[in-house]
Amino acid sequence: MGYRVAVVGATGNVGREMLNILEEVNFPVETIHAIASRKSIGVEVSFGDKIIRCEDIEQFDFSRVDIVLMSVSGAFSKEWSPKIGAAGPIVIDNSSAFRMDPAVPLVVPEINAAAIETHSGIIANPNCAAIIALMAMWPIHRRNRVRRATLATYQAASGAGAAAMAELREATRAFLDDHPFEPKVLPHPYAFNLFSHNTKIDPATGYNDEETKVINESRKILSDPEIGIGVTCIRVPVLRAHAIALTIECERPITPNEARALLSDAPGVRLVDDPERNYFPMPSDASGADDVLVGRIRRDLSDPSGHSLALFAAGDQLLKGAALNAVQIAERLLPQTSA
Amino acid sequence: MGYRVAVVGATGNVGREMLNILEEVNFPVETIHAIASRKSIGVEVSFGDKIIRCEDIEQFDFSRVDIVLMSVSGAFSKEWSPKIGAAGPIVIDNSSAFRMDPAVPLVVPEINAAAIETHSGIIANPNCAAIIALMAMWPIHRRNRVRRATLATYQAASGAGAAAMAELREATRAFLDDHPFEPKVLPHPYAFNLFSHNTKIDPATGYNDEETKVINESRKILSDPEIGIGVTCIRVPVLRAHAIALTIECERPITPNEARALLSDAPGVRLVDDPERNYFPMPSDASGADDVLVGRIRRDLSDPSGHSLALFAAGDQLLKGAALNAVQIAERLLPQTSA
Repeated sequence: MGYRVAVVGATGNVGREMLNILEEVNFPVETIHAIASRKSIGVEVSFGDKIIRCEDIEQFDFSRVDIVLMSVSGAFSKEWSPKIGAAGPIVIDNSSAFRMDPAVPLVVPEINAAAIETHSGIIANPNCAAIIALMAMWPIHRRNRVRRATLATYQAASGAGAAAMAELREATRAFLDDHPFEPKVLPHPYAFNLFSHNTKIDPATGYNDEETKVINESRKILSDPEIGIGVTCIRVPVLRAHAIALTIECERPITPNEARALLSDAPGVRLVDDPERNYFPMPSDASGADDVLVGRIRRDLSDPSGHSLALFAAGDQLLKGAALNAVQIAERLLPQTSA
Repeated sequence: MGYRVAVVGATGNVGREMLNILEEVNFPVETIHAIASRKSIGVEVSFGDKIIRCEDIEQFDFSRVDIVLMSVSGAFSKEWSPKIGAAGPIVIDNSSAFRMDPAVPLVVPEINAAAIETHSGIIANPNCAAIIALMAMWPIHRRNRVRRATLATYQAASGAGAAAMAELREATRAFLDDHPFEPKVLPHPYAFNLFSHNTKIDPATGYNDEETKVINESRKILSDPEIGIGVTCIRVPVLRAHAIALTIECERPITPNEARALLSDAPGVRLVDDPERNYFPMPSDASGADDVLVGRIRRDLSDPSGHSLALFAAGDQLLKGAALNAVQIAERLLPQTSA
C-alpha cells in the first residue's frame, strides 16, 4: 500500500532532485506523476531507472494523488497550490508563496516536525539559506538559545535555477577563452565574480528579499520572533552548494567544545572541523551530500563575554536546501515515521 | 631631482604592480631597479614603456638606492629587510615580518600617515584584507568609534600569489572540460569551490593566521587595542579582488545615511550603493581600481539599539591591498606630500 505522488515543476533542478530522492529513500510510491507547464509536456524525466513523461498541469486531475511536491515560482504556487489542495492532496510547496502565512506550517523536520500536524492542506518548504543556517544553529539553539546571529552567505548559482548554473559555466568558459559574454539570467558578470543577491531590495530596511526571507523564516521555524538576525546574502561562483559564515550569541556562556559536542550528535549535520589539516566545510564536499557540514567552530573574539561563537557551514542547495527537505516533510506524513 | 628606487620581488604579482604604479603616479624616480632572487636574474619586467632586467639581490649594493619596496615572503623579509635598511634606504615591506613590531609603523596612508614619521628604517604595509576592511570602516570610525566589528571575507586567489591565480584558471578549465585536476598550490579544489583561508590555525584561538593578522593589524593601524573584531577569512574563486561583509557596532547611534555621507567624502573610497539597480561593490568592478568600493549600507537588524550597520566592500588585492598602498606610503616620504 503506497502513496500516489506528483512532482509539479518536474523539469527544474529541484523537481528532478525531488524525483531522485523519492526513489533513493524508497518512498512508498504507488504511482508517480511528473507535472509541468504546457511547454514541457512529454519531456522525459528519470525516476530511478524508469523514465516518466511530463503531464500538463492544466489537464491533470489532482484528486488522483495524495501528495504533491511543488517546485515552481511563488506566483505560480500562489495560483495553483490552493487549487491543488482543494482537490484533495497535501501540497508541500518549495516556493516562498505561503511560507509566512500563519495558517501554513514552515518546516525543517529536524527542527519543528511537530508543526506539520497543524497543516490544512499546504506545508511550506523554507528558503535554502535559512535551512542551511538553521541546521547549523539549531543543535546549539535548542540547548542554549541563540539570541543574536550575524550571517554572511556564499550562495551558489543553483538557487537561481538551472539556467543560472549554465550561465556560470558559459560565462566562465568565455572568460577563460577571452571571449565576450553578455549575462542573460543574472544581472551581473558571474565568471570569477560575486555580487549581492539579485533579489529586490526593501527600501524600508535596505535588505533584499533573500535576506528578509532568512530573517523571517528563521524566526517562524524556531518559533522565536525575538531572535536578532543580521544577514548579508552574496552570490558566489559556485554551482550548487551554499556556504554561510555564522556568528552567534547565546543566552548563556558556551565553549567551542560544547558546540562541537552538540553538533556531532545532531541528525542531518556532519561535523567537519579539523584545524590541524585545515579541513572545514566546503561546497565541493557538500554538493551531493544530504548532511549540512558545520565546522570552523571557535570563539567570536569580538565578544569577550564568552557567549558568542563563530561557525562555518556548507549545504547542498538542491538537496537539504530544497528537494531533500521537501521529501523529508513528506516522509513525516507517513504513519510509521510521523511519531 | 628624483629618488633611487628598488623593487625587491619584482617578478611577483605585487612586485610587478609596484613597478606599474610607480610609473603611473609619476613617482619621482631617478633610477629604478628590479631585484629578485638568483633564479630570476635577467628576467624582464616592465616599467612604463621601458623594459628592465632583474638584478640579483645577493649582488646588489643597496647603498645605491633611497627607497626599497619589498614584496617577498615573511621569512625572506625577516632576513633581508634589516640588512637592506642598514645599508641606507628606507624599506617599505609588504610581508607580515615586521607588521606587529612596535618599532615599525604599519600604515594605511588615508588612516595613519603620521605614523610614518616614527620609522627607523622599515615601514610595514598591512595585510590586504585588513587594508580593505579598514578603508571601509575608517571614515565611520574616525567620527563615531567602531567598538565591535564582525567580518566575513571573500578573498581572491591573488593573495596566494600568481601561481594560485594560474591554478584557479587551470582547475576551472579542467572542471569545465571534465578532466581531472590535482591542486598543487592550494590545498583544496578551487574550481567553483571556496574554502577556509589556507593559513595555519592557532590552536589557542581557532583563528587562522590571516584572521589573526586582520585583528591585530587593525588594532595597531587604528591605535585602538580595545576594538573587538571577529573575522572569518574564506578564499573564493575570484582572481584579484577581495570582498568583505562587515557588521559594525559604533559607540553612538548611527544611521545608514550618516555612514553614506562619511564614506562618500572619504579619500580612497568609492560609494557603490544603488539598491534600485541592485548595484553594489563587486570584485569585477574593484579589479584594477585604486579605490575601495563600499556599499550595501543598511542597519544591522540584529541590533535594535541603532548603533550597528552592515556594509559590503570590495577592493583590488594587488592594488590598494598591496602595491598601491606601498607606493602611497613611499609618496608620503616625499617632501612635498609629507605634510
